[in-house]
Amino acid sequence: MDIASLVGILMGCGLLVGAILMGGGNFSSFIDLPSMMVVIGGSISAALICFPLKSFLAMPMVAKKVLLNKAQDYTGLIEQLVSLAETARKDGLLALESRLGDVEDDFIKLGIQMAVDGTRPEVIEDILRTDINSLTTRHRNGKSVLDQMGRFAPAYGMIGTLMGLIMMLSNMEDPSAIGAGMAVALITTMYGAIAANVFFIPFAEKLGFLSKQEIISREIIVRGIMAIQSGENPRVIEQKLNTFLPPKNRAGDKEAA
Amino acid sequence: MDIASLVGILMGCGLLVGAILMGGGNFSSFIDLPSMMVVIGGSISAALICFPLKSFLAMPMVAKKVLLNKAQDYTGLIEQLVSLAETARKDGLLALESRLGDVEDDFIKLGIQMAVDGTRPEVIEDILRTDINSLTTRHRNGKSVLDQMGRFAPAYGMIGTLMGLIMMLSNMEDPSAIGAGMAVALITTMYGAIAANVFFIPFAEKLGFLSKQEIISREIIVRGIMAIQSGENPRVIEQKLNTFLPPKNRAGDKEAA
Amino acid sequence: MDIASLVGILMGCGLLVGAILMGGGNFSSFIDLPSMMVVIGGSISAALICFPLKSFLAMPMVAKKVLLNKAQDYTGLIEQLVSLAETARKDGLLALESRLGDVEDDFIKLGIQMAVDGTRPEVIEDILRTDINSLTTRHRNGKSVLDQMGRFAPAYGMIGTLMGLIMMLSNMEDPSAIGAGMAVALITTMYGAIAANVFFIPFAEKLGFLSKQEIISREIIVRGIMAIQSGENPRVIEQKLNTFLPPKNRAGDKEAA
Amino acid sequence: MDIASLVGILMGCGLLVGAILMGGGNFSSFIDLPSMMVVIGGSISAALICFPLKSFLAMPMVAKKVLLNKAQDYTGLIEQLVSLAETARKDGLLALESRLGDVEDDFIKLGIQMAVDGTRPEVIEDILRTDINSLTTRHRNGKSVLDQMGRFAPAYGMIGTLMGLIMMLSNMEDPSAIGAGMAVALITTMYGAIAANVFFIPFAEKLGFLSKQEIISREIIVRGIMAIQSGENPRVIEQKLNTFLPPKNRAGDKEAA
Amino acid sequence: MDIASLVGILMGCGLLVGAILMGGGNFSSFIDLPSMMVVIGGSISAALICFPLKSFLAMPMVAKKVLLNKAQDYTGLIEQLVSLAETARKDGLLALESRLGDVEDDFIKLGIQMAVDGTRPEVIEDILRTDINSLTTRHRNGKSVLDQMGRFAPAYGMIGTLMGLIMMLSNMEDPSAIGAGMAVALITTMYGAIAANVFFIPFAEKLGFLSKQEIISREIIVRGIMAIQSGENPRVIEQKLNTFLPPKNRAGDKEAA
Repeated sequence: MDIASLVGILMGCGLLVGAILMGGGNFSSFIDLPSMMVVIGGSISAALICFPLKSFLAMPMVAKKVLLNKAQDYTGLIEQLVSLAETARKDGLLALESRLGDVEDDFIKLGIQMAVDGTRPEVIEDILRTDINSLTTRHRNGKSVLDQMGRFAPAYGMIGTLMGLIMMLSNMEDPSAIGAGMAVALITTMYGAIAANVFFIPFAEKLGFLSKQEIISREIIVRGIMAIQSGENPRVIEQKLNTFLPPKNRAGDKEAA
Repeated sequence: MDIASLVGILMGCGLLVGAILMGGGNFSSFIDLPSMMVVIGGSISAALICFPLKSFLAMPMVAKKVLLNKAQDYTGLIEQLVSLAETARKDGLLALESRLGDVEDDFIKLGIQMAVDGTRPEVIEDILRTDINSLTTRHRNGKSVLDQMGRFAPAYGMIGTLMGLIMMLSNMEDPSAIGAGMAVALITTMYGAIAANVFFIPFAEKLGFLSKQEIISREIIVRGIMAIQSGENPRVIEQKLNTFLPPKNRAGDKEAA
Repeated sequence: MDIASLVGILMGCGLLVGAILMGGGNFSSFIDLPSMMVVIGGSISAALICFPLKSFLAMPMVAKKVLLNKAQDYTGLIEQLVSLAETARKDGLLALESRLGDVEDDFIKLGIQMAVDGTRPEVIEDILRTDINSLTTRHRNGKSVLDQMGRFAPAYGMIGTLMGLIMMLSNMEDPSAIGAGMAVALITTMYGAIAANVFFIPFAEKLGFLSKQEIISREIIVRGIMAIQSGENPRVIEQKLNTFLPPKNRAGDKEAA
Repeated sequence: MDIASLVGILMGCGLLVGAILMGGGNFSSFIDLPSMMVVIGGSISAALICFPLKSFLAMPMVAKKVLLNKAQDYTGLIEQLVSLAETARKDGLLALESRLGDVEDDFIKLGIQMAVDGTRPEVIEDILRTDINSLTTRHRNGKSVLDQMGRFAPAYGMIGTLMGLIMMLSNMEDPSAIGAGMAVALITTMYGAIAANVFFIPFAEKLGFLSKQEIISREIIVRGIMAIQSGENPRVIEQKLNTFLPPKNRAGDKEAA
Repeated sequence: MDIASLVGILMGCGLLVGAILMGGGNFSSFIDLPSMMVVIGGSISAALICFPLKSFLAMPMVAKKVLLNKAQDYTGLIEQLVSLAETARKDGLLALESRLGDVEDDFIKLGIQMAVDGTRPEVIEDILRTDINSLTTRHRNGKSVLDQMGRFAPAYGMIGTLMGLIMMLSNMEDPSAIGAGMAVALITTMYGAIAANVFFIPFAEKLGFLSKQEIISREIIVRGIMAIQSGENPRVIEQKLNTFLPPKNRAGDKEAA
């Protein structure tokens, strides 16, 4: 499990709290309910306008995925594909059917099943690639909900600050209240900046990163299955798939040469 | 009907009103006619320069589409195409003519009609894809009217604020009026930010989202019709088209394998 | 003639004047010659550095094109191409020569002439597409002059304001002059924002829009001429070209099916 | 020689000086050595981090190219290629060798030499296109040095202003010095904006424009040489190459038809 | 070794220190621990959310690469490939095996080894290109860590400044402390701007530049190996590869003609 995101969030929040304590600030000056309402509520309502409710309700799942993701194990994936290739080479494509039970990944299963069924290679590749494309589209939609919230949060922060300033300025009978009024007005901008830079934007970036990783592992699978289906030498397949890895991680590269 | 957009708008406006009430503000300090004129009128006039009148007059239709859109029913669409494929497989391509009456979607109708007429596959695909491209272009034009208004609204907001500040600063005989003057000047910036972030930008994003959904459903149709025309097995067609869906929605996937 | 742009400009300027009058402002506070010099002169000189004099001198023509453009008549264009296709189908390609006199558009003429001359289809398509590409490049150059001016105007506005502030701040003997000094300094920023948002940016967008429209009409012509040359059925040609139009404008669609 | 850039620079600087004089400003209030050091030195040091020393030392050459460029003479270029095509058509490809002495352009020379040597067309096209690609890459690198400086100059301007404000604010014993202190602080922002908008950004844009022009002329040459090598009719070559020009500049178009 | 980056960093920092000294500033007014914590800690924690720990821990290596990179020696690379081509032409592809010991570059080794092993050309090209693509992806990931930190540093700078202003404004009993309070608040913005513009952004740009250089050298190798494998004339290979260089560096161009 990659806990960097979790560490990052805790560290980010901790730092801001720490900085307030070190600056001798009073926590209560940083809490303002209407400001929170404008920023959080505003970003949510703008996102509701942009996206169907369904994309929106998937957000908790998305957050969980960001915080508790497992790193892609490319090396293990390549080993599995090479081992399938060895079976296919030794005992024929049909022998792969008996091994389907061991395969956990649905995408590999789909590909192997089609190969066993004798589906034509172009059809297999077409189906697998369409699957990757629609996965990419779904990922992109998920990411863009967060991207938009990271864009709207500061905008609503500014709207709230302008509202605060206008209220303060149109009612300046008590000059001693100006400082406090401006402080309250500025809190909304701060909330917007924190919501965007501690949560929405980094989460969106992480989602984009995880998506790219998953696409690469699917690309490895497509290449592997096409090679298995065409009966290529498992050593050549290993060498081909290893080029997706950084040189130092290429386990079987020696023998392949 | 997807009412998320409607909910989003009501919630966004409600929040801003609520925040004013909670802050003890006076509504009248947030109403300024010349500011509204500059922001709304300015965005409209800038959009009028950018686009022909026609694109502009289509805006109410566009707003209706955003607020009252129906989600695309991909599963139903795939079922319909598979059922057409079964008819074609069983009774031949010409038998599809009798089923044209049941088909509501003009785009499917166009494709099936051409298949029945014996038009060559390349011509069918070319015509259907050109249709998709020109639909995409029309959608993009509609979206860019809103995009531009979301860009001009804050700009005119700033112009109005600058005008207000200049008037105030060049006439500072009564210092007690400075606060009120600045409040009025800032209202224009606030109007610009609200117009852009509650209306124009989220509407433009929603339009973009709806357009992408519609393009995907047209892509499914093109793939389906090309497969029907070439007489593919309905089960393989179903499997192919299902790859456009997220795995959990793939109804017939089991049997297809 | 599409007068939306003209209406937009007049409306935009009218609104700003109206807002000043309604705000009880004094026009003279909004006129400052050095500020105008910095913004207009600065944008022009920056554009002169970016582009050759020729692109620059073409600006009045470009402005006229934006203000007085004619909408593209796609339907008429398709009718003309279909009518040419009918002649070619009935009387042979050479019969088109006699109809060249009726054709006003130079681009159609060029294509038909090459078809009549018996130029090979690949050469015709290559020449017509290169022509479209170089038209696109010329349009893009014209648009980017305006784009750059829309980018430089606010920048020079800010430079002017900074100059005004520095002058005012380094000479603050008379505190009562501070307000007026700041007002004058801010005027430059306002000029920059008005120049960019009322003129340069909307004009650039309109040019981009007109360019896209013209490219589409040329694309229709290329498709039409290639189809005429290959002797396709005029009804099929009509159907093909109609896909460039929104469904409701497809005149001959009924018969074509 | 295209002197627009030179005129633009002189005009830009003249305007700023003129505006100061008209505003009754004192030149000495606009000169501040540390500010200049931060902006110019900062942009240079940031660019040094981004690029190898070599790209950096090429800047004076680049500036000269921007200020004293010659416009591309497309018409002359096409005439030259057509004349070479006529020689090849009349006396054979080998006869071009005797004409190599008249050709000044190294790129044409390279292409003609390869055609004379009997190099295969695919190899000629591949070599010429790789040459264009690596030219494009070199141009882009040159442009991006200026682009980055145009991005860093305002950033360092802001850093300088923040430094000035912090110094002033942490030492406010003499309130009468506040105005002068702020003036000095703002000068750095002004320097950054002037450096970026009078020099770096327009120069980068001009370089991009010149690069595009040169790429077009190389594209014309590649098309011309490939056509000459395949022995096409000089009239058809002329017509092909003329499509790169705007219609009004197409000299030989009449006869070509 | 290209020390431009090292010089740039030292010069950038030196300039800022120099400007403070020249301005008669007090260094202690520029040091504020909580501000540093917010900016540096905040950028790090945001980057931790965005990327897996591994990408993050690679940063010191990346910094070393930027500061101590060696320029790509394209000329030497081309000479080496041409010399390998000569061996292959004279003594056959298998003779290259004995020369593998001299080759330092792993990428050339991989290609030559596959050529010697008799791997089919398409497979060699596919493997080498996949290798380049995955190198590009890894480079892009490394660069985007720095890009994101260059984006978050100013954002956290602004958050820190807002926090400082709110603390100051909500506690204005001692007006004489306002100046110092604002100074401290502004320091965070300054830290953010310095972190981004002296370190993160220029380092990211340099990484991008180095990556492009390495990709070009790999592209040269692929072209070279494919040409060696197909037994092309070493002179033609030299001429082909030389087109990647600027004209003045093309050593063997004379003889090649």
